[in-house]
Amino acid sequence: MSSIPETAQLGNHTVIEDDVVIGNNVSIGHNTVILRGTWIGDDVTIGNNCVLGIRPAVNQRMRKSDNEDRQLIIQSGTKVGHLASVYSGTKIGRNVFIGDHASIRENVLIDDKSVVGRAAIVELNSKIGKFCTIQTLAYITGDTTMEDNVFIGPCVSMSNDKYMGAKSFTLNGPLIKMGAKIGNNASLLPGVTIGRNSIIGAGAAVTRDIENNVTAAGVPATKFNR
Amino acid sequence: MSSIPETAQLGNHTVIEDDVVIGNNVSIGHNTVILRGTWIGDDVTIGNNCVLGIRPAVNQRMRKSDNEDRQLIIQSGTKVGHLASVYSGTKIGRNVFIGDHASIRENVLIDDKSVVGRAAIVELNSKIGKFCTIQTLAYITGDTTMEDNVFIGPCVSMSNDKYMGAKSFTLNGPLIKMGAKIGNNASLLPGVTIGRNSIIGAGAAVTRDIENNVTAAGVPATKFNR
Amino acid sequence: MSSIPETAQLGNHTVIEDDVVIGNNVSIGHNTVILRGTWIGDDVTIGNNCVLGIRPAVNQRMRKSDNEDRQLIIQSGTKVGHLASVYSGTKIGRNVFIGDHASIRENVLIDDKSVVGRAAIVELNSKIGKFCTIQTLAYITGDTTMEDNVFIGPCVSMSNDKYMGAKSFTLNGPLIKMGAKIGNNASLLPGVTIGRNSIIGAGAAVTRDIENNVTAAGVPATKFNR
Repeated sequence: MSSIPETAQLGNHTVIEDDVVIGNNVSIGHNTVILRGTWIGDDVTIGNNCVLGIRPAVNQRMRKSDNEDRQLIIQSGTKVGHLASVYSGTKIGRNVFIGDHASIRENVLIDDKSVVGRAAIVELNSKIGKFCTIQTLAYITGDTTMEDNVFIGPCVSMSNDKYMGAKSFTLNGPLIKMGAKIGNNASLLPGVTIGRNSIIGAGAAVTRDIENNVTAAGVPATKFNR
Repeated sequence: MSSIPETAQLGNHTVIEDDVVIGNNVSIGHNTVILRGTWIGDDVTIGNNCVLGIRPAVNQRMRKSDNEDRQLIIQSGTKVGHLASVYSGTKIGRNVFIGDHASIRENVLIDDKSVVGRAAIVELNSKIGKFCTIQTLAYITGDTTMEDNVFIGPCVSMSNDKYMGAKSFTLNGPLIKMGAKIGNNASLLPGVTIGRNSIIGAGAAVTRDIENNVTAAGVPATKFNR
Repeated sequence: MSSIPETAQLGNHTVIEDDVVIGNNVSIGHNTVILRGTWIGDDVTIGNNCVLGIRPAVNQRMRKSDNEDRQLIIQSGTKVGHLASVYSGTKIGRNVFIGDHASIRENVLIDDKSVVGRAAIVELNSKIGKFCTIQTLAYITGDTTMEDNVFIGPCVSMSNDKYMGAKSFTLNGPLIKMGAKIGNNASLLPGVTIGRNSIIGAGAAVTRDIENNVTAAGVPATKFNR
């Protein structure tokens, strides 16, 4: 059984499975599903028609993360929008904002005060720092590392599989260093590093590492003076 | 209490909060949530598992619109798909079509007979004219102005923040003039104007204003003869 | 009435309309809606808050498919994620995986053992072969033909309307031949053919046919040596 404090506000037709822990002053919207093993801190707000605490269900052709039995942790003060989904084995820090229709996979860390935009997707094994902004419809591939204060524009795309399934390859997401900013609809190739405080232009395709403190744009992205 | 006419067809587990007005011959799907303050005209059809009338919930790092207390208005003959979300303070005109998984923010106007495609997103304070087509997965940034008869291809991306949060900047969406057409997956930078009846090629990045009646493509987009 | 075998596991608030056929050992999540005319094979798993078997609801400005009265067929061993939507008149083969937030339109065939990624969209009248991978947020336009073993990277975009509604045009999706691989966020123009085992780079815009066994990249995409 799950123990639900009297301070919780639950919507209609909310489903809360067993082994769910709910803090004080939590609000959960209508038709939202909280699956077993989910841990929700104080002052968390969750919208309508969400699904939280999903255990990975994969077929033979998809990889598994290491620790799919761990719980989903949502720390205090965080807000989750509507129609969003979050997997188990993931930790969402304090005062994070998860937009409507967003999807966050297993074994992800999203650190304090970061924003995951509307319909943005964060794939498995990614680490997002503090005060990051991931804008609407951005796609954070698996195994991405994002330091603090990174800005990812809307519709940014990433990949982590150099050979697109054709050869054996250790999947390798981008490393985006502190303060970097990626313009809308830019594409990052597998394993690229974006340097500290560097800026990538809208629509660029980043095919190799970008050093610190530069601006790069174009397909493929090249440095230009600023 | 909300007054629900006898002509309304409601699905199972539908949630209709207080202060909702529902016209004649309205159909609302299963598990759909209509939040307080929503006004629905005659002959409106709403699919399953939608959330309508959302009041903005923002954290300290996200901006608010001016008038978040206003109601959501959906005028007669409009159809909303499944798993879609629409905010309060927005007006959707007559005979509009809102696709499945679409998301429309607060303080938006979508004028008569326009189409918002599947999983397309319209951000706050945007004005969409009549007979516009916004295709699947297109992203309409905040403060966009779109005149009548505009065509936005699938996966088009826009932005409205020139410095990506780095400096103070008045957010400034694109202005897309009457009859303009934007090809699939093109990127528009903050504040650009696309002239009347101009065409932007697929995958282009539009970094400056485009005059009337021209075709432009490439990264960055340049005019070419047609 | 629908006949639901004793081996079925149904979540809370699940809605199963009339004329639904459910095989053995089927699991259906909470708040999921199965609309009339849906046929579900043995050992199928469906997540929470999905909508399956949607009949097309179009306005005057959107086209209809030919056979919108046919049923949705989901064959044995297939898994559907959470918050996904699938239309009627579509056939999903055996051991297919449909990701969370994905949307699949009417009159589509997805053949055995293919994967449709998270938030990916497959538009009407498309045919997807066996062992294909369509990654996260990819957009498969209407009338696309994809042979077996094709790989579509994340955020790939396609279009099928050469004149973007300006002239009468037979809608014409891409033809992607066996073993081809499309890099993330590439854009395919209407009617292009991608040859067998060819590779398209990330962020490319493919404006004309690509022959077999080549690599092409850039905006517009040109062949380069490998």
